[in-house]
Amino acid sequence: MKPQVLIVMGSDSDMPVMEGAWQMLEEFGISCEITIASAHRTPERAVKLASGAEDRGIEVIIAGAGMASHLAAVLAAHTIIPVIGVPINSSPLNGLDSLISTVQMPPGVPVATMAIGKAGAKNAAILAAQIIGRKDPAVAKSLREFKKKMAEEVEKKAKALKRTLPFT
Amino acid sequence: MKPQVLIVMGSDSDMPVMEGAWQMLEEFGISCEITIASAHRTPERAVKLASGAEDRGIEVIIAGAGMASHLAAVLAAHTIIPVIGVPINSSPLNGLDSLISTVQMPPGVPVATMAIGKAGAKNAAILAAQIIGRKDPAVAKSLREFKKKMAEEVEKKAKALKRTLPFT
Amino acid sequence: MKPQVLIVMGSDSDMPVMEGAWQMLEEFGISCEITIASAHRTPERAVKLASGAEDRGIEVIIAGAGMASHLAAVLAAHTIIPVIGVPINSSPLNGLDSLISTVQMPPGVPVATMAIGKAGAKNAAILAAQIIGRKDPAVAKSLREFKKKMAEEVEKKAKALKRTLPFT
Amino acid sequence: MKPQVLIVMGSDSDMPVMEGAWQMLEEFGISCEITIASAHRTPERAVKLASGAEDRGIEVIIAGAGMASHLAAVLAAHTIIPVIGVPINSSPLNGLDSLISTVQMPPGVPVATMAIGKAGAKNAAILAAQIIGRKDPAVAKSLREFKKKMAEEVEKKAKALKRTLPFT
Amino acid sequence: MKPQVLIVMGSDSDMPVMEGAWQMLEEFGISCEITIASAHRTPERAVKLASGAEDRGIEVIIAGAGMASHLAAVLAAHTIIPVIGVPINSSPLNGLDSLISTVQMPPGVPVATMAIGKAGAKNAAILAAQIIGRKDPAVAKSLREFKKKMAEEVEKKAKALKRTLPFT
Amino acid sequence: MKPQVLIVMGSDSDMPVMEGAWQMLEEFGISCEITIASAHRTPERAVKLASGAEDRGIEVIIAGAGMASHLAAVLAAHTIIPVIGVPINSSPLNGLDSLISTVQMPPGVPVATMAIGKAGAKNAAILAAQIIGRKDPAVAKSLREFKKKMAEEVEKKAKALKRTLPFT
Amino acid sequence: MKPQVLIVMGSDSDMPVMEGAWQMLEEFGISCEITIASAHRTPERAVKLASGAEDRGIEVIIAGAGMASHLAAVLAAHTIIPVIGVPINSSPLNGLDSLISTVQMPPGVPVATMAIGKAGAKNAAILAAQIIGRKDPAVAKSLREFKKKMAEEVEKKAKALKRTLPFT
Amino acid sequence: MKPQVLIVMGSDSDMPVMEGAWQMLEEFGISCEITIASAHRTPERAVKLASGAEDRGIEVIIAGAGMASHLAAVLAAHTIIPVIGVPINSSPLNGLDSLISTVQMPPGVPVATMAIGKAGAKNAAILAAQIIGRKDPAVAKSLREFKKKMAEEVEKKAKALKRTLPFT
Repeated sequence: MKPQVLIVMGSDSDMPVMEGAWQMLEEFGISCEITIASAHRTPERAVKLASGAEDRGIEVIIAGAGMASHLAAVLAAHTIIPVIGVPINSSPLNGLDSLISTVQMPPGVPVATMAIGKAGAKNAAILAAQIIGRKDPAVAKSLREFKKKMAEEVEKKAKALKRTLPFT
Repeated sequence: MKPQVLIVMGSDSDMPVMEGAWQMLEEFGISCEITIASAHRTPERAVKLASGAEDRGIEVIIAGAGMASHLAAVLAAHTIIPVIGVPINSSPLNGLDSLISTVQMPPGVPVATMAIGKAGAKNAAILAAQIIGRKDPAVAKSLREFKKKMAEEVEKKAKALKRTLPFT
Repeated sequence: MKPQVLIVMGSDSDMPVMEGAWQMLEEFGISCEITIASAHRTPERAVKLASGAEDRGIEVIIAGAGMASHLAAVLAAHTIIPVIGVPINSSPLNGLDSLISTVQMPPGVPVATMAIGKAGAKNAAILAAQIIGRKDPAVAKSLREFKKKMAEEVEKKAKALKRTLPFT
Repeated sequence: MKPQVLIVMGSDSDMPVMEGAWQMLEEFGISCEITIASAHRTPERAVKLASGAEDRGIEVIIAGAGMASHLAAVLAAHTIIPVIGVPINSSPLNGLDSLISTVQMPPGVPVATMAIGKAGAKNAAILAAQIIGRKDPAVAKSLREFKKKMAEEVEKKAKALKRTLPFT
Repeated sequence: MKPQVLIVMGSDSDMPVMEGAWQMLEEFGISCEITIASAHRTPERAVKLASGAEDRGIEVIIAGAGMASHLAAVLAAHTIIPVIGVPINSSPLNGLDSLISTVQMPPGVPVATMAIGKAGAKNAAILAAQIIGRKDPAVAKSLREFKKKMAEEVEKKAKALKRTLPFT
Repeated sequence: MKPQVLIVMGSDSDMPVMEGAWQMLEEFGISCEITIASAHRTPERAVKLASGAEDRGIEVIIAGAGMASHLAAVLAAHTIIPVIGVPINSSPLNGLDSLISTVQMPPGVPVATMAIGKAGAKNAAILAAQIIGRKDPAVAKSLREFKKKMAEEVEKKAKALKRTLPFT
Repeated sequence: MKPQVLIVMGSDSDMPVMEGAWQMLEEFGISCEITIASAHRTPERAVKLASGAEDRGIEVIIAGAGMASHLAAVLAAHTIIPVIGVPINSSPLNGLDSLISTVQMPPGVPVATMAIGKAGAKNAAILAAQIIGRKDPAVAKSLREFKKKMAEEVEKKAKALKRTLPFT
Repeated sequence: MKPQVLIVMGSDSDMPVMEGAWQMLEEFGISCEITIASAHRTPERAVKLASGAEDRGIEVIIAGAGMASHLAAVLAAHTIIPVIGVPINSSPLNGLDSLISTVQMPPGVPVATMAIGKAGAKNAAILAAQIIGRKDPAVAKSLREFKKKMAEEVEKKAKALKRTLPFT
């Protein structure tokens, strides 16, 4: 199956955070390609990945990187498909550096920025599904079911809590 | 023409920032509907706007709000179409409060967050176009032209600079 | 006994922080109901909890959530009883995201915000008691005793310290 | 009419911010007393104001101060009635100093903290009304009407916007 | 020997940080009294400690507290002897809350603020010695020796490093 | 009259902030010397000022500088008399850079840090008076009067407010 | 004269800040070329500028940009000559976004980061001169004279101050 | 071999961070001298190191220090050779204090600032090599090879990833 989402990480040390993205995509039945490219150490590779993406059928790019994370921006500069940025907490500044470097894009080149770390990686996949869901009704349906299931889980936990805590 | 993008502002005082979004959409030939709704003062209105959006043919929602800006989040909680959040600088914290309240979404409900203020409003429209461009080739073409024009403008400014500064 | 305080957590992972609230309420002899609801994953549940609270005899709502914590705000949007927000430290930003998302409410819908984490959860219960103490003299009396006991404990520790440190 | 709310400002320069509080209280028909006291320059005065408040019939204290704002905390240390703190933006740190000094109270002595500046002053009055509304049905009714009016104003603005913007 | 320095901690949990202060004072042969008092839980105790200090022969007060640390400020409000504040890192905000609450004093009541944590506790003692050294030549002499010893230790470490690292 | 306090500014542009210091010292009848020296542009001058200060009868040094303000630290490194640091707001970071560079001194060399800007400059003079007051009873007396006067002014303003606001 | 320094700005709106750089270079007799290139809008242009710089005889690159400023990083990724980054204050975050995006480079690709704004632009030119001064004795001599002149100006201002302020 | 780079650390506890610098220099075949000097505890030693550096043939100075790190600035004040600053994370503020104290230099005395911690130490060595590479073609060649090797390693990791993840 041809990949619909391209996931790019700045380094293989970003895998424990970013795997939340591909696990989530799998739940929605969306195929993806996962690779490593650095905006600073392999700029050509990053450019090639982005500029060839549309022609290869990629619908959305998800990029995760830490520190002064320019990866999502470099990719966004070379494509017109949506680029989602996941800030990664890999420096003493707790990911605030990565968040600000990802989100504060100047006018002209947007990066759809998610929360720092695992929550952001998971949400990147959901946003990718929402984008793909605009033309693929099956994905849209999965999203509706996911939303319902998410709510049901909270309700279930609320009920379980009621049994545990006698005074509630 | 049926609106494809719904722009929601938390207050009419957000208009000078958010008008960058609809001006940009117009450039891409994308129709939009602009309205006001507050996550805190008119929660039902916000819910109705979001939950009815998909059926009315809306493809993307853009939400701009200041302070502890929950507007984008509330909309995202009630729809499966992509929601783009524009943090607005309308408090002594310079929009940092709005940025953090918009971007740090817990797992399950993403908000595609843009830069604070006018840059973010403009980029929200471009991201919306990129999403719509996934199924509308005319919009994709406009995006390619926009990217080219943007580059040409920089080149033109660089040339103009060369004439101005004798020592360069 | 009918619950006077409603404690809502965004997730069951918030329990170790929020249990400080119900333990403290117990000390004041105030009954409470504890449940889970997410502003983003179960918005309807949150709305129902808040909008029905007054009629069920709830006097105060305490809400604890992490990240871009909109829970207290969503509850406050649907009720006229006081809502106390406890920011929770559950992301790389150390709870600063939760604090700012909770406290920076736009005019019209206040959230009585506490300190981040356990200190805040305990103080939320004390503030709830102070509010209930406005009409329940027994709770007011408990608060006066609590204040005295708190002071006595510090004095006792100061005395103990005097015995321990020979040179003081 | 005996005052139900005591508003204390750290300095008369805080009046332009804090007047939002008393204007709002007036709307709810709640009487108030307004005075100046400094936690650092007139500590005895602050102590006297707080420790005598309950006996004089005060139901809620609202305290507004800038910089390392200890005023709300000092008042809260000497009373068991709820104390609401309004951080004021009067230093180069844009009120962040005041917010953090007000909200990060150690366990035992809560301060119900509002947003920085005018939004916070207005919300302090609404929270005070919500607390008084727990025993005064007339105030509770006013709060319900205020909530409705607030929503209607947003709806009215949304309609006005529709007339202005031809393309919406 | 009558104590010259009064060290006040907000809680006994602050001891591991503050012991750096009394160990350092001992090195300078300065006697001290160590106690616990909370600005919020035992405000009267704090007031008494500060207002009686000068008459008891105290020359300098050192105060260490965490979170929204008002202890040093409350003491400074009740005395004209110098008060040194040590911010303590005991909340998710890493001591930034304590630093800002200690240092951003409004005009009229200074608190001589030190670095967060152990470095600050040690430096508080040195500053106390510098103040006492203004009238006690023996302490001034100790300070000069301390400065020399400190420099010698660095030089010794630099020499040791030279032996360790062959390529230097 | 021989100067007792040495005020050093990093630049003549710091005068509008620092004049608060010498005006305040004048009120206490404390003589001072005011000069300019830069830790970075005239390091030798800074060293000479600090290392010669004690012999010239200087009791306290006050240093004000902006940005990465090392001036107070450089002076403190060359003397055993107390050095008070005033952070100055002269960069886009609003004085936060200056505050952090002044206060976060490593163990061994304290700088008594004040609030950012004018409040800090005024407080630096009061702290200097408190230090000198430890051996000069006349200054101690002035400080007691200043404290009283400060309180009286607040009381006076509180009374004036009572006359102005009819509803209080 | 062939340019030795290449100054690149992200936008022509950065000129008022960056002109400090070329004015300073002129003082040292160092020729420069000034141009505009955007990491996001004209990535190819940026790459070409950087990768061709060494062969054209450029010794140092100075890059100034605002917001999530990736310009210096993109240039550094394509050359082995030193790249100096000047963060520019052009967003509501006061240049903190630009500073963090410029300085927090991951290992492998350094950017020599300066202070935010005009001070940084001027210092970028001085650092460029220091680098060129490593092989050009004339520039090294200019730097020594600049250092002396800078010190003399401070001394002159200190003298002028002495005449102005009668009580110093 | 005469050292070309001087590495100065504020304390021997900075070695685990700074060793990244000398390991990296060794890769480029650049000799270095490593020592300890404190801007605050051994100011004379710091001055001597910097002012004698040029005559001893040092081409670049690398300085690493934590907290209010003035070391790089003090060295830069006494030399015209480039000084590179490495902020070190050794306080509760996570190195943000050190970063800001290093980078926000006032105009006239630049410090080429790197990222906080190990990434910064490694990059300091690369920048030093880039500066030396301006006159030493062998070092320039090493830098070109290093850049290539760095890219190849990323490509290798990308390939390895492809083998590991079956679904990519």
